[in-house]
Amino acid sequence: MHAFRSHTCADLTKANVGDTVRLSGWVHRIRDHGGVLFVDLRDHYGITQVLCDSDSPVFAEVDKLRSEWCVRIDGEVKARDASLVNPKLPTGEIEVYIRDMTVLGAAEELPLIVFGDQEYPEETRLRYRYLDLRREVMQRNMTMRSDVVSSIRRRMWDKGFREYQTPIITASSPEGARDFLVPSRLHPGKFYALPQAPQQFKQLIMVSGFDKYFQIAPCFRDEDPRADRSPTDFYQLDMEMSFVEQQDVFDTIQPVIAGIFEEFGGGRKVDQEWPQISYRDAALWYGTDKPDLRNPIKMQVVSEHFRGSGFAIFAKLLEQDGTEVRAIPAPGGGSRKFCDRMNAFAQKEGLPGMGYIFWREKTADAVAQELGISVKEAQAKLKSGEVEGGMEAAGPLAKNIGPERTEAIRQQLGLGVGDAAFFLGGKPKAFEGVAGKARTVIGDELGLTDKDRFAFAWIVDFPIYEKDEESGKIDFEHNPFSMPQGGMDALNGDPLDVLGYQYDLACNGYELVSGAIRNHRPEIMFKAFEIAGYGKDEVEKRFGGMVNAFKFGAPPHGGCAAGIDRIVMLLADEANIREVIMFPMNQRAEDLMMKAPSEPTSDQLMELGLRVIPQED
Amino acid sequence: MHAFRSHTCADLTKANVGDTVRLSGWVHRIRDHGGVLFVDLRDHYGITQVLCDSDSPVFAEVDKLRSEWCVRIDGEVKARDASLVNPKLPTGEIEVYIRDMTVLGAAEELPLIVFGDQEYPEETRLRYRYLDLRREVMQRNMTMRSDVVSSIRRRMWDKGFREYQTPIITASSPEGARDFLVPSRLHPGKFYALPQAPQQFKQLIMVSGFDKYFQIAPCFRDEDPRADRSPTDFYQLDMEMSFVEQQDVFDTIQPVIAGIFEEFGGGRKVDQEWPQISYRDAALWYGTDKPDLRNPIKMQVVSEHFRGSGFAIFAKLLEQDGTEVRAIPAPGGGSRKFCDRMNAFAQKEGLPGMGYIFWREKTADAVAQELGISVKEAQAKLKSGEVEGGMEAAGPLAKNIGPERTEAIRQQLGLGVGDAAFFLGGKPKAFEGVAGKARTVIGDELGLTDKDRFAFAWIVDFPIYEKDEESGKIDFEHNPFSMPQGGMDALNGDPLDVLGYQYDLACNGYELVSGAIRNHRPEIMFKAFEIAGYGKDEVEKRFGGMVNAFKFGAPPHGGCAAGIDRIVMLLADEANIREVIMFPMNQRAEDLMMKAPSEPTSDQLMELGLRVIPQED
Repeated sequence: MHAFRSHTCADLTKANVGDTVRLSGWVHRIRDHGGVLFVDLRDHYGITQVLCDSDSPVFAEVDKLRSEWCVRIDGEVKARDASLVNPKLPTGEIEVYIRDMTVLGAAEELPLIVFGDQEYPEETRLRYRYLDLRREVMQRNMTMRSDVVSSIRRRMWDKGFREYQTPIITASSPEGARDFLVPSRLHPGKFYALPQAPQQFKQLIMVSGFDKYFQIAPCFRDEDPRADRSPTDFYQLDMEMSFVEQQDVFDTIQPVIAGIFEEFGGGRKVDQEWPQISYRDAALWYGTDKPDLRNPIKMQVVSEHFRGSGFAIFAKLLEQDGTEVRAIPAPGGGSRKFCDRMNAFAQKEGLPGMGYIFWREKTADAVAQELGISVKEAQAKLKSGEVEGGMEAAGPLAKNIGPERTEAIRQQLGLGVGDAAFFLGGKPKAFEGVAGKARTVIGDELGLTDKDRFAFAWIVDFPIYEKDEESGKIDFEHNPFSMPQGGMDALNGDPLDVLGYQYDLACNGYELVSGAIRNHRPEIMFKAFEIAGYGKDEVEKRFGGMVNAFKFGAPPHGGCAAGIDRIVMLLADEANIREVIMFPMNQRAEDLMMKAPSEPTSDQLMELGLRVIPQED
Repeated sequence: MHAFRSHTCADLTKANVGDTVRLSGWVHRIRDHGGVLFVDLRDHYGITQVLCDSDSPVFAEVDKLRSEWCVRIDGEVKARDASLVNPKLPTGEIEVYIRDMTVLGAAEELPLIVFGDQEYPEETRLRYRYLDLRREVMQRNMTMRSDVVSSIRRRMWDKGFREYQTPIITASSPEGARDFLVPSRLHPGKFYALPQAPQQFKQLIMVSGFDKYFQIAPCFRDEDPRADRSPTDFYQLDMEMSFVEQQDVFDTIQPVIAGIFEEFGGGRKVDQEWPQISYRDAALWYGTDKPDLRNPIKMQVVSEHFRGSGFAIFAKLLEQDGTEVRAIPAPGGGSRKFCDRMNAFAQKEGLPGMGYIFWREKTADAVAQELGISVKEAQAKLKSGEVEGGMEAAGPLAKNIGPERTEAIRQQLGLGVGDAAFFLGGKPKAFEGVAGKARTVIGDELGLTDKDRFAFAWIVDFPIYEKDEESGKIDFEHNPFSMPQGGMDALNGDPLDVLGYQYDLACNGYELVSGAIRNHRPEIMFKAFEIAGYGKDEVEKRFGGMVNAFKFGAPPHGGCAAGIDRIVMLLADEANIREVIMFPMNQRAEDLMMKAPSEPTSDQLMELGLRVIPQED
């Protein structure tokens, strides 16, 4: 017999009854039922109930076992009584009578209980990650992550892509975030950098003629921590193709992503229609470039209804250049309580407030107040038809602009009784963010957002440049390596009108994918950088490796990168990225288990030619 | 029609004759045959001949094309004349008449010609790697590497392993080589390290209950460069399993490795028998722990034949403790010229020389010399049978020890006429290395080593400890984390007798795999470290992350790691690891294309709290 096991803890069924078996695993739970010891023995694959009565030669030893001891047992498989069958367990029809037992690894008192759902502070979980990872949900998350990555690989191979590894110890990459540096021993005073992404390398792979590249690539950014990103490194499905246009990239990656969500989404609906929404429309409709399309609310411009109206705040504001009033329709939000809560939300987010109108059935109360009569009289007038009933717009804003404008707004937004609309005005950049958040909260609170669904949208037509409001300086809005739509001609016009072949994929409010058709023509690239104030020398110096390559027959190419950790987060329905990473850093970028970072030895510093500057407290 | 291509450059056959097609690719070669321009258009997939005569509207533009320009052509597929069919090309039956042509990316004058086999200095190849990679052999090496890695992954999944990613920014790992350090910005003065291997993490994954782990893992060692290793990073197939013994690991990994060599070995023979050879036997028989078993030569101890013999050097030497004389049999090496060359080789390697005996047919010359007669007389005596002919042992050593001992050696080694044997004496550690090299050279020179074959051997039973000859101090010979054979009991005996469950796989003279059954019991681990002079505190401090984990129910586990770069090197029949890495560093650990390492900005150093110590010239 094998030294440790004849079966895993998920293998045994009724068919094994009578067999002598050997199992190894951990003591998940141990119960003493009147002199009979029941042990739930757990391994990676499942749980088997093993038991031992006082007749067993190893009863005394089994009696000493505690949770999470690792043991090997020999025993005999018996059928459970019909009344004791556990249909939830694959091994629920049998149990194993222990004949012999060996402790493989004892456990000290546990700082974290594996069995059950007790919550622990993250510090405890990370310090004892090896115990935390034994818990059912973590086993599930990690195996799902592994399965997702494997499925992505298979899907990319099926599409004719090959995986090529790019350097991890390299030069700084120009992604705009902070690099991790690695001091060189052979060249003291010089440093390597860990790649923020393999972007330059994948473009060089295209210039090298490989046609289709992908990689499940580690990326490194020295960033300040956030719940949905790691403070040190993350993984990306990175891909690039030659001889393609934007739509080719979409057609390639959409079935891969959709397939993954169908395979691992646990039955949640996966939208097959992925609309392409321009960056400008996304900002207008959703207040963000990563909209959650499960939420049906779409904002609209309603400036015309407020221009010159009796609502002085908006009317005055609209006299300034570049201002707008936008409405967030809220179907089903037609109550003062709800509207006031949303108004308070906007104030908490730093805005003066959010005007609103809501529509309700005209009540006797309202008629009485309006006509200065009693409620009873009002009821009578409504009943007799002397006063018309029906819909009524409520809220101070409606009063200010009057019934005609109010009705025009209602019609534009397609709302009715029981609905509301919220209004924000000013320069769009100043309120778009809050508008987007309000849209999310409204969708959530009103139950409009279907949680059992994955909704995708390509955000396209990103502007290449933006103007700094204060300095008036033109700089790159996003990635400087994207091909401008219209090529060199477009660059000769107004920079702020130039759109790029650059795109993001939004899913349920997260940015899942980002990519571009690259600018592979040196002359267009130099021009693009010149507009943003970078001279030729600077470009050669900063991105020389890639720009030089473009001088030797570069093919048109483009691609994208998808965040693996984020995809798994969504699939596992977790809000914290650390739930889907085996050994994550904590929020202070520390590994509590392995004790990193730590002080180097003076020999190490000497070899690197470095000195640590003493920090002031 | 697609913006860039209707087909790849490998697609078109006779079936497409008459089709209007669009191709994109690089100008591989361009020839002017009397006013007709022939262009070999190349992409990742193949080559298609396209042509253009002076009637073509784009003749003038095509005439301007130069090698490695990237172009798109539209044209019509025509069958070639039977006499012009090229059976070596999949597209050799057709050619495409150019109707339209667009330059996608022009090329400056090339520093490196892609077409043909011209050799370039490595510096040029690495600086213009994107051109170098376009060459046929590099395209083949890189796609093979990609295919090998993919096949390894598939094979591991088929065996029930899942791939889990381990941290790349972490704490120092105790592999014994130099770490790359990464300064922490959030914790100035502290450093992370890049992992030399994921060993501690994969062991923690076992303690976490995942049962079977693998990873195609990047590993980082700040090493001095060598042809068969990268000065910065390399990739490993890293795997680990719980509840296993040594033979389980062998049974798991052997079919994976053998399968890869069969799949990608290009028909070279893949040995199915993988002998298990103890570390001591490997040193004796092959002079190395990574023997090349394609070479049939096996060394033997022949001390007894020299003890007290007339060959004073060996006889005296054998009076010292711990000395031996070993023979390298050289079937077919029986000529003085060859033996002298091998002797010179040993001297070049720093030994005083290598004694030898060779066996030949007794010649008239030899008889004449022996008996002081003329060659003619000797011939007559041999012919008449007055002097016995047959075999004769030659070389000074044979004379010194006399015919009986010489004959006993010959019989032990199983040699005959035309063969030779070489002898080395002293303390084995002092000459084993040279003996091993001599064995290789002898096997090569005599054509004994079958080059079209992959021969594997597991090297087992490594000693856990070694004694420093000078200090007498006991230290770990190899990995300190291996389980000693015999467990705690063994550690209570003579440390130098303790063998570990530790193993290497040798293939054709390279170490391909290394692994161990791990020491998962804290008490045995502390004892093992104590013998090597490490106190409990030191162990807790250096390896606390892992040792602490072992206190909470650690399962028995073991695994191994296989060098991916080296496997691909062997399969691609390359002697330099840089031929199978997409963007390798040069031998000075520099990336000439991306310019790494480079000087950091003073802001970067400031943020990290570091100062560079000025170097003296």
